[in-house]
Amino acid sequence: MKDIQSSADHRGIEIQKVGINDVYMPFMIKTKEGGFESVTSRIRFTVSLPKEFKGTHMSRFVSILNKWSGQPIAEPEMEKMLDEALYRLNATSAELAIGFKYFVNKVAPVSGEHSVLDLDCAFVGKKSKGENFIFELGVDVPFTSLCPCSKEISDYGAHNQRSLARINVRFRDGYDCIYIEDLAELVENEASCPIFPLLKREDEKFVTEKAYNNPKFVEDELRDLVLAMRKIEGLEWFSLECENFESIHNHNAYANHEEYIE
Amino acid sequence: MKDIQSSADHRGIEIQKVGINDVYMPFMIKTKEGGFESVTSRIRFTVSLPKEFKGTHMSRFVSILNKWSGQPIAEPEMEKMLDEALYRLNATSAELAIGFKYFVNKVAPVSGEHSVLDLDCAFVGKKSKGENFIFELGVDVPFTSLCPCSKEISDYGAHNQRSLARINVRFRDGYDCIYIEDLAELVENEASCPIFPLLKREDEKFVTEKAYNNPKFVEDELRDLVLAMRKIEGLEWFSLECENFESIHNHNAYANHEEYIE
Amino acid sequence: MKDIQSSADHRGIEIQKVGINDVYMPFMIKTKEGGFESVTSRIRFTVSLPKEFKGTHMSRFVSILNKWSGQPIAEPEMEKMLDEALYRLNATSAELAIGFKYFVNKVAPVSGEHSVLDLDCAFVGKKSKGENFIFELGVDVPFTSLCPCSKEISDYGAHNQRSLARINVRFRDGYDCIYIEDLAELVENEASCPIFPLLKREDEKFVTEKAYNNPKFVEDELRDLVLAMRKIEGLEWFSLECENFESIHNHNAYANHEEYIE
Amino acid sequence: MKDIQSSADHRGIEIQKVGINDVYMPFMIKTKEGGFESVTSRIRFTVSLPKEFKGTHMSRFVSILNKWSGQPIAEPEMEKMLDEALYRLNATSAELAIGFKYFVNKVAPVSGEHSVLDLDCAFVGKKSKGENFIFELGVDVPFTSLCPCSKEISDYGAHNQRSLARINVRFRDGYDCIYIEDLAELVENEASCPIFPLLKREDEKFVTEKAYNNPKFVEDELRDLVLAMRKIEGLEWFSLECENFESIHNHNAYANHEEYIE
Repeated sequence: MKDIQSSADHRGIEIQKVGINDVYMPFMIKTKEGGFESVTSRIRFTVSLPKEFKGTHMSRFVSILNKWSGQPIAEPEMEKMLDEALYRLNATSAELAIGFKYFVNKVAPVSGEHSVLDLDCAFVGKKSKGENFIFELGVDVPFTSLCPCSKEISDYGAHNQRSLARINVRFRDGYDCIYIEDLAELVENEASCPIFPLLKREDEKFVTEKAYNNPKFVEDELRDLVLAMRKIEGLEWFSLECENFESIHNHNAYANHEEYIE
Repeated sequence: MKDIQSSADHRGIEIQKVGINDVYMPFMIKTKEGGFESVTSRIRFTVSLPKEFKGTHMSRFVSILNKWSGQPIAEPEMEKMLDEALYRLNATSAELAIGFKYFVNKVAPVSGEHSVLDLDCAFVGKKSKGENFIFELGVDVPFTSLCPCSKEISDYGAHNQRSLARINVRFRDGYDCIYIEDLAELVENEASCPIFPLLKREDEKFVTEKAYNNPKFVEDELRDLVLAMRKIEGLEWFSLECENFESIHNHNAYANHEEYIE
Repeated sequence: MKDIQSSADHRGIEIQKVGINDVYMPFMIKTKEGGFESVTSRIRFTVSLPKEFKGTHMSRFVSILNKWSGQPIAEPEMEKMLDEALYRLNATSAELAIGFKYFVNKVAPVSGEHSVLDLDCAFVGKKSKGENFIFELGVDVPFTSLCPCSKEISDYGAHNQRSLARINVRFRDGYDCIYIEDLAELVENEASCPIFPLLKREDEKFVTEKAYNNPKFVEDELRDLVLAMRKIEGLEWFSLECENFESIHNHNAYANHEEYIE
Repeated sequence: MKDIQSSADHRGIEIQKVGINDVYMPFMIKTKEGGFESVTSRIRFTVSLPKEFKGTHMSRFVSILNKWSGQPIAEPEMEKMLDEALYRLNATSAELAIGFKYFVNKVAPVSGEHSVLDLDCAFVGKKSKGENFIFELGVDVPFTSLCPCSKEISDYGAHNQRSLARINVRFRDGYDCIYIEDLAELVENEASCPIFPLLKREDEKFVTEKAYNNPKFVEDELRDLVLAMRKIEGLEWFSLECENFESIHNHNAYANHEEYIE
């Protein structure tokens, strides 16, 4: 049966990325506590395609992923999948991005009630032939923000809302990536108040007053996070996006920032 | 060229609804002020299919819609499209649902600044042979809600958030449907505070304090809306859905209710 | 600390459904093979609220769900959660809907290669005081459809596309619900061709030719599924929605049908 | 009333982008035929924030946009809005991105029937103090792709599907940007077959056979588009993304490419 994909191409164009998108697969993610959490992942897996070939082999991407279906994956496993893609697809560069919902444990601030909070996370791995493996972690952390202007000018009350910080980090060679749990905590420390799925009345009083005592603009959240990120040892690059789903508008306050650390 | 769709079917199944979905088309919607607003509509258009025929004719739905592309549509035009579908597709019932973003004018409460607020709206028309035309209007109205429990138990502040009311209404024969603008105002009257795209500082003080003075659970919003709906003359049926995008949780408080008015 | 929610309400309106929406939590789902699969669930959990009370207690919904977080859930566990909600929230009816991606094993038709296919599924449970527990299963199954008209009128080729069947089923008392795997297979048997994540060239030839030999309109898919559903023993009710994401249009062909079986 | 936003900030961090997101507003877009089309736009509008200031003034973004609400906008108007933002918000750089659905006229290839096709489009404008205005146009164009491998190895038929090309372009100073209509046509010329909302039977035969005669991998679509883009006079940069919503899989074939033209 003819292999059309392997036939010669004469257009002279090397394709930067080609592969599969929106594939879903289950994986296991190592938790900070040392166990594993099952996640449902949405995947994009691509390679570069040399100008000599008409097409890549799409089924091989699925075949590579399949071996890890339902298995624990972290940085080393991401690199193995990329190495196999480079080899089996004759590519000079490969990229694998997986997104998944991950649950972290939360303890209500007064009652001590336990619950689990969902965070949208991403692992992105990149590998080029003869170069080091690059790994990026992305975590979206919801939190409460309370408006300093509204508090200042109003006789009572202050508008507040659900907000989201989207963080991506990349570490220098020789440094391990941070845990999802730690990145989430780092965001929550800079928020007007963290978010909890389960709050009893005494907790609700606590978070209401804490947010009121700790007003922050989207600019404050972003800047305080930048300062916190700069203190992380071994961090090479990060990007931040903060968004407040304003309670008084039908649109959002938004800020973003990206930084390479010397 | 053979018309496969018209060939006989022997499975004996009348299909309740068959047609096209996720078609987009521009229309004009009459505003309360008497002008017209251009909208981008997402459309589902279906008919029943008699058990004798293998298939309906999908291109005729598009052809019927095309005549109205870019034109003003309201109840009478929806009925004309349904009548044409009943006739051209040999159907006993037809349904046309269009969803669109519609902009209403808002005036900031203190500064008087003007701005436009986007509302997700829907027109749904239904017609069966020999029966009256049925028309339903749907409007999603964003507003601010402030939690009575949080206010009561906290020494200062109260959590508040963006909320959404989704309302659908149907009037009795002989009564005209309400305007989108009026339905939006009706929701805003029952909210802790309406939402405005443009607020100056004096307005922000006003809405912050107004919401604080007017705390409402999702249950309060729903009940107060039910009472308000019951007063609308000629209303035959309504459904309500209220959702608060809680600032202290990553999930929402939710309530719904449906009522036929005697 | 005052319990505002429990205070008396004088508006005289019993709320049909009130609770929490868009909560995420991990659960385990029993597979047909006898094991368990971890899933990430999106949840709506509501109760009715008697007209005497101002509000329900939102934290109790989370508290009830929490006990089952990460645990196996099926019909009996759904009923237990509803019973607890009825009791702890003083309600006369309760409803719990959870949606999740579930992976089923697929074997390529010629090469025999294994892979996993993601299906969007739902468990919906309803309970009213003194009445039987109602359980509904929903499964969305992707498949390939090939157009009979296009095949008939063209000298070669025929347009085909990805399609989706959305099925919901409810069984009579005394009958167990069908497995997700079986419902998926039932859809695939009526499709132009099933979908497989991993196909080698010999498989691709097989599925291309199989679809071409088995052309079906969206009406054919729906009717053949109706016939198949009617043969399921103990089935009390089903709803079907078929949608073809037409390769020759930017909109979809769509059909739906609902049936109570005598 | 105190202006908290203008108060001094001592963290020493200039924020790269801060502003409003997910604002909706109606605008008019000039068509190639010389008229105007009303669109519903989703907007992100940001500026840089000097390290000296605590916050930007969110209401001014809305105020700037408001003046253009319902008005025709193109490159010059985008630049005016950015200039006003630079001035009123004391910023050194500003960015305005608006996305909207735009309808283009399509004529069925045999019957000559007219219909309108919806395309997702974007205008992105960027301006830094003392630098030239940068304008980017983005257009997403749906089309039909037919698989060369499936055609080659199968005795009859070939799988085909709806596909999408996402194109962004930027022209050199002194060159006008291309029309949306022309960019759409450029994509359609390289597709297995264009997409039409309204097709009669004779048209359906035509598009079925045309696609079968013109098989293309996602790699072919991308490469042929790259070649076509390179011929556009004055083009400085483009990015391309092609995605096939495979009829035989539940995932997509995907390719992307970005190029600065010397």
